[in-house]
Amino acid sequence: MSRPASEFALIDRHFRRPSRHADVRIGIGDDAAIIATAPGLDLALSVDMLVEGRHFLAGADAHDVGHKTLAVNLSDLAAMGARPRFALLAGALPDADEHWLARFMDGFRALAGRHEVELVGGDTTRGPRNLCVTVVGDLPAGTAITRAGARPGDDVYVSGSLGGAALALHALRGAIHLAPDALAAVRVRLDRPEPRVALGLGLRGVASAALDLSDGLTGDLGHLLAASRCGARIEIARIPADAALPLHGASRALALQCLLAGGDDYELCFTAPVHARPHVDVAARDAGVGCTRIGSITAAAELVVVDESGSPLAEMPLAFDHFR
Amino acid sequence: MSRPASEFALIDRHFRRPSRHADVRIGIGDDAAIIATAPGLDLALSVDMLVEGRHFLAGADAHDVGHKTLAVNLSDLAAMGARPRFALLAGALPDADEHWLARFMDGFRALAGRHEVELVGGDTTRGPRNLCVTVVGDLPAGTAITRAGARPGDDVYVSGSLGGAALALHALRGAIHLAPDALAAVRVRLDRPEPRVALGLGLRGVASAALDLSDGLTGDLGHLLAASRCGARIEIARIPADAALPLHGASRALALQCLLAGGDDYELCFTAPVHARPHVDVAARDAGVGCTRIGSITAAAELVVVDESGSPLAEMPLAFDHFR
Repeated sequence: MSRPASEFALIDRHFRRPSRHADVRIGIGDDAAIIATAPGLDLALSVDMLVEGRHFLAGADAHDVGHKTLAVNLSDLAAMGARPRFALLAGALPDADEHWLARFMDGFRALAGRHEVELVGGDTTRGPRNLCVTVVGDLPAGTAITRAGARPGDDVYVSGSLGGAALALHALRGAIHLAPDALAAVRVRLDRPEPRVALGLGLRGVASAALDLSDGLTGDLGHLLAASRCGARIEIARIPADAALPLHGASRALALQCLLAGGDDYELCFTAPVHARPHVDVAARDAGVGCTRIGSITAAAELVVVDESGSPLAEMPLAFDHFR
Repeated sequence: MSRPASEFALIDRHFRRPSRHADVRIGIGDDAAIIATAPGLDLALSVDMLVEGRHFLAGADAHDVGHKTLAVNLSDLAAMGARPRFALLAGALPDADEHWLARFMDGFRALAGRHEVELVGGDTTRGPRNLCVTVVGDLPAGTAITRAGARPGDDVYVSGSLGGAALALHALRGAIHLAPDALAAVRVRLDRPEPRVALGLGLRGVASAALDLSDGLTGDLGHLLAASRCGARIEIARIPADAALPLHGASRALALQCLLAGGDDYELCFTAPVHARPHVDVAARDAGVGCTRIGSITAAAELVVVDESGSPLAEMPLAFDHFR
């Protein structure tokens, strides 16, 4: 599929180059860069930029924005199995609205505190609202979980449940009606995603590959498969759908879109050898987050999604792309 | 002076907190954070965000913007005496303009290559044009040049010449007319600042304090003095003014504004004990950039600027502040 000027093509074409430093274990193209800075210890570095009107709604609660700005970055570290340590925050604000900034920082700090992340650098400027966070994590040398380690026969897992955040966005835009209770439940998924940091740490030495789900399951899993040079067969019936997703009614198409390609899930998608199933169970239990087997890695380099009757989906929903 | 909601007050009030990690040597408030990651080696981390229409003109050559986006970050590392190693780049672009991005990356990479900086992380999204770079440098443990080490009697230096970038901005805005040759010369200072990386490395163990000049000499030096809890007396006649600055004509007030508070100089301002003068000379010669003594550190906590006749300036030009 040719998608000129997609976000991923832009990054590939303009950002990615062969590494010039021996201590860059993993450069651009995974959830975080991995740098060998000290004997026995690797650093993980990742950056994410959130733009008002794109990653959060204009008028969104600043506390939620502060939470989410850090959460999406911690999710990248979680996907590498890195322990979060430090963050740097740069923000453009339309005006010096101290109330907004104070609430933003409350949300940011509450999450940072829970993960013992220290804010060590900051820059503020005036401009259209835009928040950019860089996170630094660490991990024992050579233990990073990359996207490239999946092997045919491995199980494919996702953590938590999928589709809730996308459903909330559709409801807020009026594309579907939800009862107030259901909307409130899925809005939490959209506004306050919970980075799976503890799970990521528990999957070191267990998972063969991992990434975080930010743009939707099929698109993101596609990146993992491309990096691992293999394919996968996943079953819709096994994918842990958010309870509010109307998979069996008139809105099934929209529900499938949310489930498979909705984006903003911030769950982990990972693979592990079959013999590691007990270890995955332990990691999931210790982290307090469910992990569900949704299919298997295949040798053929394609992603097959089968529906509840066992038939491959004819049309695959498209993942989110910032430049499409 | 009470300046509610200034950029610096915002950072102080909302970003700065006591450090929670023993390995954070320097947190928010200097040019870069300093982290003790490995025995013998410290990391320096800094972030800067550039907004179109604020840090670069709409319609500016993307090659220049790419250069400047990295340069202002490398300047922060230089001010700490750190060797640049890695960069992460996040960008919001109004559209997937590949030509713009390709030229931007050409400018970014040309400077990165000269300083052996590797781009290890990237994020792109759609939005009002905004570029955010995080840089990582390293330095021998405990050798960072902070803002806090100046002592009464120390000399105060600046590298290169000041005021050219600000003069260019005034000329482009029509506030002053410059001959084409003069304009071209100062535009280079505005569009393609040269981070003083080699000088910063040479000043390790020589300078007692340093910072980079981004918002103007008097304001930035004021931050160094506040961190060092002392004052300074500097002489306008000694400040190395850009050759194009009309210090002696009808535009003297504007020229002084450019020289003392213009911003965008990206030179280093540093202090060193009098006995270190020969070492400063060696560092300057080795780096190929002039360093000029412009005054001395004083015990009294105030900044006194004296004019060519030896009289203190009655009114101090104000430094640039993004929220004023």
